[in-house]
Amino acid sequence: MSTPGNGNVMDQSLAQKPHDRLAATLSAKMDAVNALIRTRMASQHAPRIPEVTAHLVEAGGKRLRPMLTLAAARLCGYEGSHDEKLAATVEFIHTATLLHDDVVDESGQRRGRPTANLLWDNKSSVLVGDYLFARSFQLMVECESLRVLDILANASATIAEGEVLQMTAATDLKTDEAIYLQVVRGKTAALFSAAMEVGGVIAAAPEDQVQALFDYGDAPGIAFQIADDLLDYQGDAAATGKNIGDDFRERKLTLPVIKAVAQATEDERAFWERTIGKGRQQDGDLEQALALMAKYKTLDATRDDANAWAAKAKQALSALPAHPVRDMLEDLAGYVVARLT
Amino acid sequence: MSTPGNGNVMDQSLAQKPHDRLAATLSAKMDAVNALIRTRMASQHAPRIPEVTAHLVEAGGKRLRPMLTLAAARLCGYEGSHDEKLAATVEFIHTATLLHDDVVDESGQRRGRPTANLLWDNKSSVLVGDYLFARSFQLMVECESLRVLDILANASATIAEGEVLQMTAATDLKTDEAIYLQVVRGKTAALFSAAMEVGGVIAAAPEDQVQALFDYGDAPGIAFQIADDLLDYQGDAAATGKNIGDDFRERKLTLPVIKAVAQATEDERAFWERTIGKGRQQDGDLEQALALMAKYKTLDATRDDANAWAAKAKQALSALPAHPVRDMLEDLAGYVVARLT
Repeated sequence: MSTPGNGNVMDQSLAQKPHDRLAATLSAKMDAVNALIRTRMASQHAPRIPEVTAHLVEAGGKRLRPMLTLAAARLCGYEGSHDEKLAATVEFIHTATLLHDDVVDESGQRRGRPTANLLWDNKSSVLVGDYLFARSFQLMVECESLRVLDILANASATIAEGEVLQMTAATDLKTDEAIYLQVVRGKTAALFSAAMEVGGVIAAAPEDQVQALFDYGDAPGIAFQIADDLLDYQGDAAATGKNIGDDFRERKLTLPVIKAVAQATEDERAFWERTIGKGRQQDGDLEQALALMAKYKTLDATRDDANAWAAKAKQALSALPAHPVRDMLEDLAGYVVARLT
Repeated sequence: MSTPGNGNVMDQSLAQKPHDRLAATLSAKMDAVNALIRTRMASQHAPRIPEVTAHLVEAGGKRLRPMLTLAAARLCGYEGSHDEKLAATVEFIHTATLLHDDVVDESGQRRGRPTANLLWDNKSSVLVGDYLFARSFQLMVECESLRVLDILANASATIAEGEVLQMTAATDLKTDEAIYLQVVRGKTAALFSAAMEVGGVIAAAPEDQVQALFDYGDAPGIAFQIADDLLDYQGDAAATGKNIGDDFRERKLTLPVIKAVAQATEDERAFWERTIGKGRQQDGDLEQALALMAKYKTLDATRDDANAWAAKAKQALSALPAHPVRDMLEDLAGYVVARLT
């Protein structure tokens, strides 16, 4: 919103981060989505539900997924209100996934705050997650589109299958980049691409545009996850809210490690087998792991991959109509990887 | 099926348990449902999924919920195949709920066998449960009925809300019979009633029949859960696969205890507060709890309640057309509580 004395609005908007500009452009819609989220996470008889959910939903997440749904609908000229329900749907699915992830990962911290399973217990995280899945299901049914339901059902299955695959593949040194990609698609890209696609579907956009929306969602989701993997070894704990090397300590075969394992000498392979495969870690192992990643420049290669996926996302946008929101999505694809530099 | 030398088929069928007679009547359909369950629980890349699921699905459960869907559809003259998908759907939802329940309850045994969270880990139970929810969602979308989706979305929310409510209400001595009933509706009756209702909806049955199917599903679900509560204190561990007094040790305010608390003297209330409210249990407490239940005859009163709900179920059937399946459902309602005598 422009207010007197704000100076040149255009200059100001250029200085904003892309998701802040998207948020400003879609602010009326996002207010409606946030109101819907608060209404639907209420429970008349089980106060634990809004307590746990509010802890996550109000924790200052960027609401990236619901914004993508709203952006896709806006870009395709949608003028109804089902986009708000679908935006709340994807945020609920995302929040439910986080709750279950924290139980699975036995995490103690998310977004710089203690996790729900630490503040309450695993039971609350499992059951409130289930409740949010059910609530998201009710919201999407209200949109009365079988195609939307089909997209979100398939995305849910891809997400869940990816999570299980990750669990078994994570400590197995045979996990290669192809399996990694499949896990990542499930873990991140599936919900991003579904969030975009349903926005186009309710707008009754032409098929090539719906496909472009899916493609745009798929690629930065992957770029985002690869960036996350990198930041786990390179990030600033204060800024990211994560501890350096968490993935290593949790024996996760993320992309920088997979690339190092692929080039490992016999001794180095034994090191990875002991620390990741067997989980017998000792003091100095994280430093040794970082040294091996430096030796093969796998953090650089991981950054290159993230950038390549971000470029694919921008490419997908060319099938969509010229629109200020399209420009913001293009900037957003760049921004996902810009945090890496 | 009648084979030569089997003697009087009618006599034989009368001697069978009602769910065995239902299973025999619906056997071709149930074979199709079982094949569908096996196909849909497969996962190309994550073998952990069919491993965990098979442990539960093949464990010899009675498949009561899918049978209810098939029975409702048959009773209403349905001749398509969507009933098979919906039957597999409710079994997947049920199985997913069991997987999450075992994590929440920290159970070690179910149906006389070690639970999945003990054989594998909590992660597998949480994530494979999520996968089955997603699979069930895909199956129901394939039936292309928004009303069916609406019923199952609402049932899912009632189930999840009931589970959370149970978690917070279970050890709170203020939990009365009304709250208990609400928890039980979520825990058991919601899926039974939805299983029946969707069978009628895909058969395009008249509204009064759809309502009767819902009512029939609601009541024995409650009778069944009340019977379960009773058997936890009175059952035969070898037959039920449960240990006597599990609910007491897990500090669950089930109906026999709620009735005893409602009539407790000051000293007795202090006993319940210590053992259930605070969970500070010692040797001899289970015996003392059983003595208090005997003093107030709460096990008898609980049995009366179960019988009253079973009678309500039979009553609901009167709105449905005369049919051999209707007779079996009537017997089934009686059988749910017959195990109590």
